[in-house]
Amino acid sequence: MTTDAQQAFMRRAIQLSRENVQRNGGPFGAVIVKDGRVVGEGFNRVTATNDPTAHAEVVAIRAACAHLNTFDLSGAEIYSSCEPCPMCLSAIYWARLAGIHYANTKLDAAAIQFDDYFIYEELAKHPEQRAIPMRQMLRDEAMQAFLDWQANASRVQY
Amino acid sequence: MTTDAQQAFMRRAIQLSRENVQRNGGPFGAVIVKDGRVVGEGFNRVTATNDPTAHAEVVAIRAACAHLNTFDLSGAEIYSSCEPCPMCLSAIYWARLAGIHYANTKLDAAAIQFDDYFIYEELAKHPEQRAIPMRQMLRDEAMQAFLDWQANASRVQY
Repeated sequence: MTTDAQQAFMRRAIQLSRENVQRNGGPFGAVIVKDGRVVGEGFNRVTATNDPTAHAEVVAIRAACAHLNTFDLSGAEIYSSCEPCPMCLSAIYWARLAGIHYANTKLDAAAIQFDDYFIYEELAKHPEQRAIPMRQMLRDEAMQAFLDWQANASRVQY
Repeated sequence: MTTDAQQAFMRRAIQLSRENVQRNGGPFGAVIVKDGRVVGEGFNRVTATNDPTAHAEVVAIRAACAHLNTFDLSGAEIYSSCEPCPMCLSAIYWARLAGIHYANTKLDAAAIQFDDYFIYEELAKHPEQRAIPMRQMLRDEAMQAFLDWQANASRVQY
């Protein structure tokens, strides 16, 4: 069962997705809701801003965080016109959102050539089996930054 | 075998990670290299800018794309002071980077309480089994955006 309020939030996300197509942008929109009101909106801006990370959900999370002046969206929920890709789903975890509502599925997205299924498969592989080669180097030197961090009493934990 | 040039790029990423700790930010740095030169740099800005998506790799990708005026970093490689989290790894795929070099591992990161291993596990689950509840609704209405997209001859494919 979805409530009238939930449907209204999703319809706003869908409206954002359709408006973006009129700007020749990707057909994706999202809104973040906290305490019954929209605190951030986003639509796909990858081609408009030359930013491959500017998916609707990421843009909405950034907007909500800027609006609420926090990097922690605990208690908020996202309404996305499409099931989140792995980047956006991970961003949703980092932002600590409490719930995800979506309309179109990732299979629907794949059918119009937005194929994040490939990325889901890649993430599940061992690093050495992935399509993009991954190589480790200089761990001994990099470890010093982690030691610095642990020794820094003024660090902002998150 | 790593080359002197590769080591120099990684040392720059490590330098960025250590400088950021001095600003009380997370111990992570990254650089993007194309045709033998650095085209974008990043360090973790989650707490500094209230942006949970501002991981070093994402910041570096955005910077490189802005610098090169493109959303497609084909042929470029990333040097990250730490193995990318699922959000950053997915962003690397979306940006079409050709290679990933990293120093600290995700286990090293987990040991200092940056636990993205949990997110890797979540991504591999079926949506209904994830810690953050996911619910589908209004697919019929959202599908119209995808039909709009397919009917729009001016769309910018990516």
